[in-house]
Amino acid sequence: MEVLNDILGYPNRKIYQNTDFFSFSLDSVMLANFVTIKLRDKKLLDLGTGNGVIPLVLSLRTSKPIVGVEIQEPLVHLAKKSVDYNHLNNQISIYHFDMKKYISPETIEVYDVITCNPPYFKVNKKNYFNESREKMIARHEVSITLDEVVMTASKLLKNNGTFAVVHRTERLLEIFDCFQKYHIEPKRIQFVHEKESKPSTLVLIEGVKHGNPGMKVEKPFIMYQENGIPTPSYQKFLLEVNVNETK
Amino acid sequence: MEVLNDILGYPNRKIYQNTDFFSFSLDSVMLANFVTIKLRDKKLLDLGTGNGVIPLVLSLRTSKPIVGVEIQEPLVHLAKKSVDYNHLNNQISIYHFDMKKYISPETIEVYDVITCNPPYFKVNKKNYFNESREKMIARHEVSITLDEVVMTASKLLKNNGTFAVVHRTERLLEIFDCFQKYHIEPKRIQFVHEKESKPSTLVLIEGVKHGNPGMKVEKPFIMYQENGIPTPSYQKFLLEVNVNETK
Repeated sequence: MEVLNDILGYPNRKIYQNTDFFSFSLDSVMLANFVTIKLRDKKLLDLGTGNGVIPLVLSLRTSKPIVGVEIQEPLVHLAKKSVDYNHLNNQISIYHFDMKKYISPETIEVYDVITCNPPYFKVNKKNYFNESREKMIARHEVSITLDEVVMTASKLLKNNGTFAVVHRTERLLEIFDCFQKYHIEPKRIQFVHEKESKPSTLVLIEGVKHGNPGMKVEKPFIMYQENGIPTPSYQKFLLEVNVNETK
Repeated sequence: MEVLNDILGYPNRKIYQNTDFFSFSLDSVMLANFVTIKLRDKKLLDLGTGNGVIPLVLSLRTSKPIVGVEIQEPLVHLAKKSVDYNHLNNQISIYHFDMKKYISPETIEVYDVITCNPPYFKVNKKNYFNESREKMIARHEVSITLDEVVMTASKLLKNNGTFAVVHRTERLLEIFDCFQKYHIEPKRIQFVHEKESKPSTLVLIEGVKHGNPGMKVEKPFIMYQENGIPTPSYQKFLLEVNVNETK
């Protein structure tokens, strides 16, 4: 079923989702809020944009052109509908592409900022056997691996451009290794904790292509107080997003 | 001036310090509390033990033998005095060694747990020009680099043994790189934040020699509430340590 959801309280953004196969995740919204956007940045790109939630949120932070690339046609369809609905055709372009094939002489070293909420899980038959094909591709490294995502981003990124991902904390080291392999220096990181007393499950990481060493670990993002009530910062976030987590 | 300080409230531990040149740091106590000690672990080692604070704290958590190795003779003297004072001669041995020279056929792959609070700063003449030689060696990579510390630890560590360090967060990536270079898989990490709203300054990292991949980021260690009052967990820590931070 195709539905139109709120995505942020103000200024208004609505998003089309198909509840049958895939809804956007809060992780993506966190990433769109986390990534550094500089005034001089001219072009932004979201790899594996799904139904376009990251470009939609980024458009609240910048007026520069944003491209979203997505391999799955049904999601491209939804993303385009949302761009239309929000009258953002002048700013956001959604392309139906396997991100690896998006690399071309016209796109290499073109982007100042690239974001990606990649598949979190390594391929493991047990894990995705009961999932729809759409969910499987979005959640598991079926059509692309972390290494390929970072290689792709690095090729598309300008020198000194910024690349940001959200991922599971347990894969932190692998993320660092991939970043370094493709000359993206990890620079900023934020750990998400469900509660202050719990280990981190999710991590936001930003790197700079050919950047200088030196890591900043931002304040932790704590979702809930010990009594289960959302923290003030998470409450603010939920009010803005106004949708349930689904990924 | 040589003084005898409290180090932990219970069971009693006192420590000798020389206020002229070097006092132990809370970082070391955090590390001694952080490191995993398993029941089956038989021998522990603290590299660059200074005045022996880490072995003294570790002795509250285990009854197994603990060795401390220190390059600076005046600190070795203090460490030995503290071991005497606390009647821990049967458990703690302090050796006057450059840790790099501590590697021998008798010590290679012997230890189950190794800790180190290494010099935090790269050599930079501006930084240490006004410091005493003792402080300089403890704080700056004059007599040993991070790479050499990890190489040394890896040689002394048993297969599957645990190595834990405390360091400045900005050098996180370098720490990971060194760990991996010497086959110590980073497994557990805890970030210390002065306040929840501030970036992390200090990080505790534990790895396992030839361990499997998979990273756990523990709950953040928050020192102060936003109003400047110590958090309950830091308050408990301060009460136990009962000494001012000096490093």
